[in-house]
Amino acid sequence: MTLADSRIDRYPTRTPSPQAMLDRLDPTVWGEPESGALESLASFESDGYAIIDELLTTAEVADFSAEIDRLASDPELRLDERVIVEKKSNRVRSIFEVHRISPMVADLVHDPRVIELARHVLGSDVYIHQSRVNYMPGFEGTGFYWHSDFETWHAEDGMPAPRAVSLSIALTDNYPFNGSLMLMPGSHRTFVPCQGATPTDYYRESLQEQWIGVPSHEHITEMAEKCGIAQFTGARGSALLFDSNIMHGSASNITPFPRSNIFLVFNSVENELVAPYSAPASRPTYIAAREFDPVR
Amino acid sequence: MTLADSRIDRYPTRTPSPQAMLDRLDPTVWGEPESGALESLASFESDGYAIIDELLTTAEVADFSAEIDRLASDPELRLDERVIVEKKSNRVRSIFEVHRISPMVADLVHDPRVIELARHVLGSDVYIHQSRVNYMPGFEGTGFYWHSDFETWHAEDGMPAPRAVSLSIALTDNYPFNGSLMLMPGSHRTFVPCQGATPTDYYRESLQEQWIGVPSHEHITEMAEKCGIAQFTGARGSALLFDSNIMHGSASNITPFPRSNIFLVFNSVENELVAPYSAPASRPTYIAAREFDPVR
Repeated sequence: MTLADSRIDRYPTRTPSPQAMLDRLDPTVWGEPESGALESLASFESDGYAIIDELLTTAEVADFSAEIDRLASDPELRLDERVIVEKKSNRVRSIFEVHRISPMVADLVHDPRVIELARHVLGSDVYIHQSRVNYMPGFEGTGFYWHSDFETWHAEDGMPAPRAVSLSIALTDNYPFNGSLMLMPGSHRTFVPCQGATPTDYYRESLQEQWIGVPSHEHITEMAEKCGIAQFTGARGSALLFDSNIMHGSASNITPFPRSNIFLVFNSVENELVAPYSAPASRPTYIAAREFDPVR
Repeated sequence: MTLADSRIDRYPTRTPSPQAMLDRLDPTVWGEPESGALESLASFESDGYAIIDELLTTAEVADFSAEIDRLASDPELRLDERVIVEKKSNRVRSIFEVHRISPMVADLVHDPRVIELARHVLGSDVYIHQSRVNYMPGFEGTGFYWHSDFETWHAEDGMPAPRAVSLSIALTDNYPFNGSLMLMPGSHRTFVPCQGATPTDYYRESLQEQWIGVPSHEHITEMAEKCGIAQFTGARGSALLFDSNIMHGSASNITPFPRSNIFLVFNSVENELVAPYSAPASRPTYIAAREFDPVR
């Protein structure tokens, strides 16, 4: 396989005028078939995601839940820039780079149940591009509009190709009605460019609400009609592995049932970040790592 | 059956301080069993709702969709106070008293498939307490927080008892993810009082967003743990019949799939409105009818 020249922007986005959608220029599953296909990933290439039931045992879910509760209530950690606190409620919403904050999460990254999924899909050694825990409260979970993570990582972080994969491990039950992730199956095969230049330090706001890097209603309608919409529902302990370029989003959560998850993004060591393709400066390294040492 | 004295407020709400939840003091299904049970209503008494598949044929759905599109694009009708227009988008969101505006909807009210459901549940002649069409756009459907309709109709309209039933007829497909109604099965057996006095002319705002007549997080959590949450999903043409006191709400809709429905509220002629129990004045009659002539 010949690697593309990362100096060439093969996925232009954040342009002044609307652009047409592009066919994906890269594979989805980079691992060679003979490297041993994982049964749980049978539909990953066509759908762009796979659900892994019971990735964690009940006991592990309890342990990780206790750990993330501990992190959220640590008064010293609240002063850390990697901890995102919702102003209105003063509640912790996310903790970034959590694999460097919590030894338990650090161990999880190395767990063969986790790392082998990423290695198989990306066909190489991998490193952590981003990690976080998300705390979505009941009643007031605000949801997130449709987007491709790769669109952001390419534009704002300088990720050359969609050779990254995310693992969302549910620590609470996902129902269809408590703001669970919605995905458009197969949408990872299309790159949906967004209009508008990225403002300076945009990440400070975009973690709360995004208005740049947002696909047009026309593109979302076309994609939804072509792909349909699926939802990641399932018991705590299950996990969703999804391609970096899949179109996804979530509705609000007015139920009393909160949602928490551990979110790990693996990037291929052959897909190291360069300068951002469409942003004035790189985001902080706790949002987009710039050390590319493989997870061993 | 002895009717309760409507001068006594048996369901106090909008009180200055929080009140405990009350057991329902009235039956759910008022019709005598020998009057012929409707198969589709088997679970109505225990759940407080029933889904009627294919209440309308495909051809009827198409006809009603054309009719409500016609209403929404009628420039003269836009000046009518019964037509609620969303300020931001200038789009029609609801049309009240639609059975007096559209002859097609007027006919639907008399249709035996519709009226017999209401007569059976309420065990008497019935009249239309409220009718409307709702137009929920894709992408920006805002959802509605948990509430009991009866709580509002009792407090603001002077409806003595929860002897009313609503029929929501879907004109678009209801998915789990496009803001479809969520209900708490069995919650109709509990009256959840709300705290806070009703402001004058509150209906002008409460049709957009409600902050009075809103149950507490504690009550909603207790009800959700006891009852669980169900969703009304199904193809266009299906309908949801639900008790006036059932706890229900909806999440936002970020999908491109809009939702439209015809919403008919039937009240028993033995449950005529009196003065509001907890509001300074009655709401307009296009929101809460004060002519009690039975539908024949």
